[in-house]
Amino acid sequence: MFTPGVIDELKKIVGKDDVLTSPEELVCYSYDTTPFTHLPQAVVLPESTQEVSAILKLANQEKFPVTPRGASSNLSGGSVPVQGGVVMLMVRFNRVLEIDEENLTATVEPGVVLAQFHRAVEARGLFYPPDPASLSISTLGGNIGEGSGGPRCFKYGTTKDYVLGLEVVLPNGEVIWTGSKTVKNVSGYDLTHLLVGSEGTLGVVTKIIVKLIPLPEAKMTLLAIYDHIDDAAKTVSSIVARRIIPTTLELLDRATMELVEAYKPVGLPLDAEAVLLLEIDGSEAEVKRQASLVEEACRSCKAREVQVAKSKEESEQLWSARRSALAAVARGCVTLVIEDATVPRSAVPQFVRIIGELARKHHLRVPLLAHAGDGNMHPLVMTDFRDQEEMVRVDAFADELFRAALDLGGTLSGEHGIGTLKAKYLAWQFGPAGVEAMHAIKRALDPNNILNPGKIFANDLEGV
Amino acid sequence: MFTPGVIDELKKIVGKDDVLTSPEELVCYSYDTTPFTHLPQAVVLPESTQEVSAILKLANQEKFPVTPRGASSNLSGGSVPVQGGVVMLMVRFNRVLEIDEENLTATVEPGVVLAQFHRAVEARGLFYPPDPASLSISTLGGNIGEGSGGPRCFKYGTTKDYVLGLEVVLPNGEVIWTGSKTVKNVSGYDLTHLLVGSEGTLGVVTKIIVKLIPLPEAKMTLLAIYDHIDDAAKTVSSIVARRIIPTTLELLDRATMELVEAYKPVGLPLDAEAVLLLEIDGSEAEVKRQASLVEEACRSCKAREVQVAKSKEESEQLWSARRSALAAVARGCVTLVIEDATVPRSAVPQFVRIIGELARKHHLRVPLLAHAGDGNMHPLVMTDFRDQEEMVRVDAFADELFRAALDLGGTLSGEHGIGTLKAKYLAWQFGPAGVEAMHAIKRALDPNNILNPGKIFANDLEGV
Repeated sequence: MFTPGVIDELKKIVGKDDVLTSPEELVCYSYDTTPFTHLPQAVVLPESTQEVSAILKLANQEKFPVTPRGASSNLSGGSVPVQGGVVMLMVRFNRVLEIDEENLTATVEPGVVLAQFHRAVEARGLFYPPDPASLSISTLGGNIGEGSGGPRCFKYGTTKDYVLGLEVVLPNGEVIWTGSKTVKNVSGYDLTHLLVGSEGTLGVVTKIIVKLIPLPEAKMTLLAIYDHIDDAAKTVSSIVARRIIPTTLELLDRATMELVEAYKPVGLPLDAEAVLLLEIDGSEAEVKRQASLVEEACRSCKAREVQVAKSKEESEQLWSARRSALAAVARGCVTLVIEDATVPRSAVPQFVRIIGELARKHHLRVPLLAHAGDGNMHPLVMTDFRDQEEMVRVDAFADELFRAALDLGGTLSGEHGIGTLKAKYLAWQFGPAGVEAMHAIKRALDPNNILNPGKIFANDLEGV
Repeated sequence: MFTPGVIDELKKIVGKDDVLTSPEELVCYSYDTTPFTHLPQAVVLPESTQEVSAILKLANQEKFPVTPRGASSNLSGGSVPVQGGVVMLMVRFNRVLEIDEENLTATVEPGVVLAQFHRAVEARGLFYPPDPASLSISTLGGNIGEGSGGPRCFKYGTTKDYVLGLEVVLPNGEVIWTGSKTVKNVSGYDLTHLLVGSEGTLGVVTKIIVKLIPLPEAKMTLLAIYDHIDDAAKTVSSIVARRIIPTTLELLDRATMELVEAYKPVGLPLDAEAVLLLEIDGSEAEVKRQASLVEEACRSCKAREVQVAKSKEESEQLWSARRSALAAVARGCVTLVIEDATVPRSAVPQFVRIIGELARKHHLRVPLLAHAGDGNMHPLVMTDFRDQEEMVRVDAFADELFRAALDLGGTLSGEHGIGTLKAKYLAWQFGPAGVEAMHAIKRALDPNNILNPGKIFANDLEGV
């Protein structure tokens, strides 16, 4: 809890209007998209690096937790202030500071919304590929905290592959730059990549330099329709065997399609067991060449039909269906638990079967949405957090799911992070020695455990 | 110094033939390609992860330093055992364990030589782009320690962009896996990328999973010839403005060409002030399109001639000239100091001018070799370490060079690392707070300062 006077000190730093303490306001910042909630004691809205620094110095002096927050589209509990204290809302850092066409970089503040940034760079013929489904609301700072992915990461890599340097306020309030506009950089330890995906536990990012690439000349959207989901899953390796990396390779099963059609009908084939939604890009000639090989690969895996989007509108409609899938499924239940287990792509067919078996075993409704190209599976567990008996089954499902992903050589999270949701599994993947190495880094940089405590490390969760 | 019995303990771990202690043998492992030398007390050749683990546990117990070593092609003093102790030679870890065509990954041991690995993957139509000039001798483990780059990194990125996971023996002897075959992975802190470029100070890598990509169908080599080096430097931005990223964009000045021609003549134009050696790759059609735009960009920047290599042999000859440049220059002097300052590519023309001015100011002979596309400059300082007066000027040149690189928004090292050579500059780039953050991580993971002490951190160098 705050000692008396902390609120006054915070108001001195950011101004009295930028410290929120009313119950109504605190409730608004107590949750993200997971079932976790916890009230902060105050919400502060800094608007400069200096203010962030002063808040963290105060936090160390007074020993209160600080949880940085972007748009709260977090899917692992990462932005819930599970130990109370201060929520640091970064939305005032909302400027694209520079798009540098000569160096193919952009310098942006962490509160910039990703879709706005996409539009700004694409207007210059440039491209920033990471595209989490939350792109119309999520912020670049949040994307860095989570190491966000998205469909296009199959071809283009995730957020970490584009971040060149960060201005960061360290947990002790010191301000550093971790990198620069240069793509090559091996000066000291790679703090840039240590921070990407660290879920706001190692520093507060205040400026971001990202790499941009030329916007591909052309793209094409294809929809491959399958009577058997197993054939759809097998298509992934069949495409890669032809040495093609599509921009995206998304799998939707029938249950997901039914919910999408009920929400935003676009004519998905509800008599099919699964579809693959593919995008390819490159020069006009390259797109044509790839399209023919992709179609061949789909048909060789018994696709019943391969449709090509005939217009930009038709393509946009299919993608808007994909992006609305989470909302469509969420409409159908009280609580939606979005899993994020990831396996090597060769294991996709086996893992898809396991997911189906586990859903049946635990009597759960689990539509499947997958970035199949990179083995990143999102089983969507439709449940109700008030139903304690069902929640026990949801937990058992998750336990078996992640055990299977690790057994197949996979990982606990492809793009949503560990947060509070998966902290208990971390040692399954890294063993006690691996978790201890990570925790030693956390303690070294944040000895008072100020920044976003209760995340990633299960022993931090005790007493929460 | 060792306590009595340490040599016996080491022999118990790796076998008596795999502990070298004769003076002749110790001298062989006392240096790399920098002027630094220091004798170890023993050289050990482990051949399993368990042996590496046992050696590090012994080192912690007996408090002796361990310096991991690959092929010793290090350019920053990173593999010199500056505090004595044990050199851990990793050459026995020399197997390509798997090339997984379905997942587009390879699993290799750290002692595998890069050129051998290139051949193995290219035989399958796959591609591992990082290509440091040392590729015919350097090892993948060394590449990871240094975060190696190379010419092709302009288009394809450096070693860090290809490493997916590492089996690592931590400084305390514990063994962990940091990642997996999945490209998407945000499970806990990114220890993989913390280790890449950490110069053997945070762990000993014993297995490596790298990402592979499809081998481009076609490539083309071009040589653009300039009467003025400034025009060659300006061409970089002119090409990028056309939204083309060549595979490589290398600059050689006249002094470098003269030394190359004296060593391995290939017909470089010695009446020109500089050449750009370019490679482009992709599909046949894409290569043709790019070649025409690249030629247009070169001519718009006053290239006097643009030659296209007519055969694979002609292309290979030009590249072998480029790769032999370091040897060619080294032949001409007693001591070659290879700098590695990197600036944003927009600053390349200005930085090339500054390098020339500094060489004249300090009366030094400094041929220039540059990965110009990514602003990674290698001024080659030809000197003689026995000439103390000249070495003072070499130091003064380097001081001003790195100050200028940082002032232009660059970094201390693009691909050679900090080692002992540039430790004194680290705080210039990151400030005391940044260096302290890095050092805190080192202390957290290696409290006894066992692994490669005396590198990266200047205060570790005291008393060396």
